[in-house]
This record gives sequence, C-alpha cells and structure tokens, in this order.
Amino acid sequence: MKLYTSIGPNPRLVKMAIEEKGLMIDRVDIDIIAGNNRKPEFVALNPTATTPVLELDDGTCIAETVAICEYLDEIFPQVPLIGSSAVERAITRMWWRRVDLMVVQPMTTGFRGAEGLSLFRDRVRCFPQAADEFKLMAQEGMVWLDGQLGDKPYLCGDRLSIADLLLYSFIEFGDKVGQPLGSQLSNLGRWRERITARPSADVTRV
Amino acid sequence: MKLYTSIGPNPRLVKMAIEEKGLMIDRVDIDIIAGNNRKPEFVALNPTATTPVLELDDGTCIAETVAICEYLDEIFPQVPLIGSSAVERAITRMWWRRVDLMVVQPMTTGFRGAEGLSLFRDRVRCFPQAADEFKLMAQEGMVWLDGQLGDKPYLCGDRLSIADLLLYSFIEFGDKVGQPLGSQLSNLGRWRERITARPSADVTRV
Repeated sequence: MKLYTSIGPNPRLVKMAIEEKGLMIDRVDIDIIAGNNRKPEFVALNPTATTPVLELDDGTCIAETVAICEYLDEIFPQVPLIGSSAVERAITRMWWRRVDLMVVQPMTTGFRGAEGLSLFRDRVRCFPQAADEFKLMAQEGMVWLDGQLGDKPYLCGDRLSIADLLLYSFIEFGDKVGQPLGSQLSNLGRWRERITARPSADVTRV
Repeated sequence: MKLYTSIGPNPRLVKMAIEEKGLMIDRVDIDIIAGNNRKPEFVALNPTATTPVLELDDGTCIAETVAICEYLDEIFPQVPLIGSSAVERAITRMWWRRVDLMVVQPMTTGFRGAEGLSLFRDRVRCFPQAADEFKLMAQEGMVWLDGQLGDKPYLCGDRLSIADLLLYSFIEFGDKVGQPLGSQLSNLGRWRERITARPSADVTRV
C-alpha cells in the first residue's frame, strides 16, 4: 500500500489518521505547487488530479479523502476513528459531513477565490466574486460548531473521531490563509488545544 | 426506525435506496416549503434543520444523507448499494464523492442563488452573484462524468451503487430547476434510461 500525498489540509487529515491509528504506510510526495499532480502519470492514478491517493498492492487506486479514511478504518479497525458500531459510525459520519458542508467547503471556495486564486484559477473553477461571503459562511459554520461542541471533549462526545481531525486540519489551514478561528469561540479553542497536544498534530512528524 | 423526509433530491436518494434494498421504513413527511423543518420540534431532532433524518427505535437521530445511506447498507447488507467488500466500498465512496463535489454541490449552490433564492435566502447563505457560474460548474461536472462513464453500465462498472442513485436524483432535480442534462451527453443519457427503468425511480411509488 502506498499513499501519494502533498501539502494541504486533506493530505494532512489522512496523515493524522494514519498516525492516530499507528500505521506505517509508504509515502510518495507530489509537488502540487509545481503542478506535478496534473501530469499524465499522476492523472493515470486519479483522473481528478487531486491528492491524496491510496494505491493498493494490486494497483487499485482509491482517491478522495473520505474513501481513503473509510478504507483504512475498515482494514485496520484497531483505534477506530469512525466508530466501533454501526450507530457510532453513523454519528461520526453525520458530524464529518456537517464539518465538510459548514467549514471545509466554504473555506476552500473562499480561499480559492482570493488568496489561492493565482494558484487555482487555471486548475479549477474559482469564484472571486463570492470569496468574501464564502469566508463568512465558514466563520458562521465554526460559530455553530462551537455551540454544538459545548463542553464535550470531541464532536462525537468522549471519543476522538475523523470529524475532529477534519475540522482540526482545516482550522490549522485557515490560520495560514487569512481565515483564523475566532478567539471568542472558546469551546473550539479548548478543543483545539486538546488536539494540538496529540502527537498526530505535530507537523514535523506527520 | 422512522424516516423524516420531504420533497427534494436528497430525500429522494434515500427513498430510492430504501426501495432498491426492498426495505419498509415508516415515513413522516415534513413540509419544507412551509418551513416545518425549521420548527423547534424538528430542530430538536436535527439542529441543522435539514431533511432527511432517520430516527432509530431508541430515539437516536441520524441526519445527513451520507450517514443514513451508510447506516442502512451496514444494517441491511442484502442488496449492497455501497459494496460487498472494503475495496468495492472504497470505489463507491470515491465516485459518490466525485458526484457530490462536481455536480451536487455546484448545482445546489446555483439553484439556491437563482431559482431557489426566494425560498432559501432567509434560510441559508445564498450566492446569487455566482449562481450562473456554479450552474456552469455542475454542467462541466456532468461532461466529465459522461466521459468517465463511457460505455460502463454504472459509475462503478457492472454494479448499481449509491453513486448512481445520487447522480440520478440530482439530474432529475436539475431538469426541474433549469439545469438539465445536456442532450450531447450520450453515455449519461443511456445510463439515465437504465435507471429510469428501475422501479425505484418511479416517483409515484417512492
């Protein structure tokens, strides 16, 4: 098994999940700034030209972060990040999706339409005319999640899940691209410290 | 188990999945045009106020279509719509996500910023300034999927999956809201006829 990966919050999520699960998976780093993900040899692995991609030993390629995380949790069920029962998995997927729709998608669209425009304008459809409002939507999503989190340790209660790792990866990304977590969001602030203390959050390692 | 449902492409997807799997699940219809999904008694079930929601017998509520479809496929593995092995499920989830990012999300954002604006402007953040370009992005997504489908019967090859049902639900929805499937997309055209012939596509039944 081999992970084609790069900089960026989605690759970071997968690397954190691998670290949390205690797995060792060979990595191939793809330079997406140089556009190496758009070269024919990478597009042959994943026709959408996105990272990460998990290549299995028989050559099967799994693209899309959600599919990779689900696959790893199925194959290596020790340290479950989605859940250890159908109901736990359902609750995790519900929060995973909420984080995706409320923070990840609008933050990404806002970034690509503004700070990321010069990199992305020739690669994907960008929306500069709506970038500011997408950023606002991501901020509103974080406010909503802060209220939902309350004093729970993690989004799904007492257990760390992939929903936390996704939100964490994108909050860290937002910090670097002008979409920081609001300092008034104290529940998410405490939650963030909790995740930052984990070895999987150490970017020098993952 | 009880499904809170309504009009709309996401509820339709879940209803099609239930029909394909041959399940009988009690339904409660929520009038979203009247805004009944935003009343306190529904928000108590799902704080995002969206349909569908699957309520389990112990009162646990599963929101978000992806979580509901995954749960039903786990609990009722006969007639798998995600897959019958970890690799099959990974491939399905990859295509499911591609359909979501390339067609479902831009089509929905385009609709809410234009034809759906009067209904949605007071409910969610809408982007009228970018609606036309989101519609274009959804069209480009359909062109890409048409090429990827080629002469395969379904997105994942020979087996019908939830990725097909999602794409079908939104192509049908697009037809009604000014975002029809391009007539030049002959692979998707044939694929669509194949799905339309299935009992689960009969809106008078589901």
